[in-house]
Amino acid sequence: MLAYGELLAFDRMANDARLAPDLRRRAVLSEMAAVEITNYRRLVERLGELGADPQAAMVPYVASLQAYHDQTEPRDWLEALTKAYVGDGIADDFSREVAAFLDHRDRELVLQVLHDSHYNQFAAAEIRTAIESDPKLANRLSMWARRLVGEGLSQAQRVAGERPALTALIVAGSGDQAGVQALFKRLTQSHGARMTAVGLNN
Amino acid sequence: MLAYGELLAFDRMANDARLAPDLRRRAVLSEMAAVEITNYRRLVERLGELGADPQAAMVPYVASLQAYHDQTEPRDWLEALTKAYVGDGIADDFSREVAAFLDHRDRELVLQVLHDSHYNQFAAAEIRTAIESDPKLANRLSMWARRLVGEGLSQAQRVAGERPALTALIVAGSGDQAGVQALFKRLTQSHGARMTAVGLNN
Repeated sequence: MLAYGELLAFDRMANDARLAPDLRRRAVLSEMAAVEITNYRRLVERLGELGADPQAAMVPYVASLQAYHDQTEPRDWLEALTKAYVGDGIADDFSREVAAFLDHRDRELVLQVLHDSHYNQFAAAEIRTAIESDPKLANRLSMWARRLVGEGLSQAQRVAGERPALTALIVAGSGDQAGVQALFKRLTQSHGARMTAVGLNN
Repeated sequence: MLAYGELLAFDRMANDARLAPDLRRRAVLSEMAAVEITNYRRLVERLGELGADPQAAMVPYVASLQAYHDQTEPRDWLEALTKAYVGDGIADDFSREVAAFLDHRDRELVLQVLHDSHYNQFAAAEIRTAIESDPKLANRLSMWARRLVGEGLSQAQRVAGERPALTALIVAGSGDQAGVQALFKRLTQSHGARMTAVGLNN
């Protein structure tokens, strides 16, 4: 799931870079995209080591991840950055939680391929500055962020239903149903903190 | 010119990766694209060291390079690969020739950011295999390659006219008009050899 997520994130970010208002910003988003592909390569190599066919391992996640991106096509530069900041933020937190249930080596690999905070800071600074200079933007981008979360949750439920092994890993790792609820509470809280940090209304 | 070329090549290859027939091939073209951005970063850093504003330095090349790509939008996977193989092949040869006229440090940098032969081999192998299994493809892709070269030459002439300093560098470096002609003859010969190597008609 993470490998296909990286491949698709590359594709979308590379495309969204065209929305950038100047060459410098366009290059930064292109560089953020390129990092995803490096990570993709590392995950695919590990899948190979584990005896899996990387392509076959990714196929079950194609429809839901593709649907998420199709439903959340940014219309401008700030929507693209908000998507990278909010969407990747939650996805990274989720991967970090699941990584805790993996053995040492895979855990380390997952933690290493999560997004570099350097780029998150770039996205956060752009959003914050834009809202400061035009406070009306906060409403529009907050609604956009809620749509991202809603669509993300909807596709996450689909994956959970279609991939019982992943669901079982999360339930077993969390201990019980209360543990799963606590996990989702942590994701929600971190998301809220990220929204507040850039001036978005949760 | 090279820096903006890398930025644009990233954009186009990342987009063309969607044409790939499977996830593995899509990932390879995405990785080829990502290399361009790493190279872009190195060139921009060097421009900064030289005291140039990278964005301002790239602007004069935007229109002609953009026009080249707009006029040569691949319609399928093999056209995308042929564009990467033929177009980047000529562009790399040209940059290699011009690099010879630069001082040691800049020459080394240009040579280092030219395309990795690993990826050229991937593109060449895909084109060769496709033509072997469907010889009719050779005609269509050869015509496509001629269009790439024609459009590339047309934009190169535009750049030469608009950027006298670049033209002067090439003329001075080549020694005289005969030297310039010899340079273009070398480019033509290498291009012909690349075409033949994958089963395309020059």
